[in-house]
Amino acid sequence: MKNVLLMIQYDGTEFSGWQRQPNKRTVQGEIEKVLTRLCKQPIKINGTSRTDAGVHAYAQAASFAGEFKIPVDRIKPAANGLLPDDIYIINVEEVNDDFHARFSAKGKTYQYKILCTKEKNVFSRNYYYNIYKELNIASMRKAAEFFKGTHDFAAFMTSGSQIFNTVRTIYALDITEEELDEEGTNIAGKLLTVEITGDSFLYNMVRIIVRTLVETGLEKIKPEEIPYIIESRKRSLARLIAPAGGLYLYKIYFNDVEIRR
Amino acid sequence: MKNVLLMIQYDGTEFSGWQRQPNKRTVQGEIEKVLTRLCKQPIKINGTSRTDAGVHAYAQAASFAGEFKIPVDRIKPAANGLLPDDIYIINVEEVNDDFHARFSAKGKTYQYKILCTKEKNVFSRNYYYNIYKELNIASMRKAAEFFKGTHDFAAFMTSGSQIFNTVRTIYALDITEEELDEEGTNIAGKLLTVEITGDSFLYNMVRIIVRTLVETGLEKIKPEEIPYIIESRKRSLARLIAPAGGLYLYKIYFNDVEIRR
Repeated sequence: MKNVLLMIQYDGTEFSGWQRQPNKRTVQGEIEKVLTRLCKQPIKINGTSRTDAGVHAYAQAASFAGEFKIPVDRIKPAANGLLPDDIYIINVEEVNDDFHARFSAKGKTYQYKILCTKEKNVFSRNYYYNIYKELNIASMRKAAEFFKGTHDFAAFMTSGSQIFNTVRTIYALDITEEELDEEGTNIAGKLLTVEITGDSFLYNMVRIIVRTLVETGLEKIKPEEIPYIIESRKRSLARLIAPAGGLYLYKIYFNDVEIRR
Repeated sequence: MKNVLLMIQYDGTEFSGWQRQPNKRTVQGEIEKVLTRLCKQPIKINGTSRTDAGVHAYAQAASFAGEFKIPVDRIKPAANGLLPDDIYIINVEEVNDDFHARFSAKGKTYQYKILCTKEKNVFSRNYYYNIYKELNIASMRKAAEFFKGTHDFAAFMTSGSQIFNTVRTIYALDITEEELDEEGTNIAGKLLTVEITGDSFLYNMVRIIVRTLVETGLEKIKPEEIPYIIESRKRSLARLIAPAGGLYLYKIYFNDVEIRR
């Protein structure tokens, strides 16, 4: 019996998300089809994170186990030769029997990309949250501080989730800025990258936090209101959500020591 | 009678090119549908450049004339409200009666983007020519010099084109390089931008020239061979073509003085 860990990159634009669904094009579905063919037996993979439609991954993790003949070091080139253009397997390795991509994960980092430009540009639509206004970044950073640490994040979860424990820990939450200047084009503006690391995240938690940060950047919410929104545990106060296309699953940690803090 | 000039940006990925075709999604077709609705009469537009499927435009030009009620300064917001996400009208202005986007053009600049990385990354597939090797940029620049000036470019045209005069002038051909470093991801490498300005271009001429430059970068062709390939006037010596997704129509000149030289 072999237990195998895959590191997977994908452009989420044309997928109905990670999770296998009948008659829909999903990342899990495409990978399972290819592995089933290579391993000559039905393969089901366990992904660490069930990313939504439109969400991207620099490095998603997934594991699967089975008795199959293909040598583990042949899986990467063989699978990449069969997979569609918007999925790429970065790494394949054999892991211990008790390893499980979902249950063994100790933490995750997501990046969220916001592009502030004067007007629309067609190239950023699937990869950024496009905002045609200036954001007050100092306010956003001040707001970000209030999210760090261990809190009950019930207010930052899409309602309807069947989760009872809504306490999560955010280890790091940073906002970096970069000027984009494509001379002569209308793609000139400010790229903000929100990087958030936590032990795990509630459904839509990153996108709701980012949208709340943007609202503080637009000066519609004051940073000082964040603790009250968290304490309220009510989704109604943080009911807006940032678009899927700006979100990137960036890194998964299987070792406590590695986590970015 | 009003004569109107549009400046148009589009992401070519999901279009069967610029030119209207029955039952195909084209940039011209989408824009004409919207303008026909806004102007309440059938509108046909003349684009400067008939870009192929997958080719992008930072700024394509197109003109149309008609007797219509909508004020010219209302066209931009109204059209952008109706157009799909991958087309954006940057500018709309009224021009002289004798102006025609195709026949009044004095020159064009194209950009072509090449990304050299160690291995595949899924985010660049529709926007760059992805090369998983290092290129000899000094050789490419040496080769580029031989294309400048006025030549018969018959060898750099897709055969079958019904064009009798294959003499064209290239005013400028520059290659710039930039290091891309996305820490922790597999998107790290060198971005080369080939910028080419000419009076006009034969069918596929830019993509064939770029592919020839890449072949010199890969050291499969010597820069000194370029003059012989041009003089041969035979497509067979330059039969390779760079992919559509790396090509961007960057600027159109309606005034000789503005042309980048």
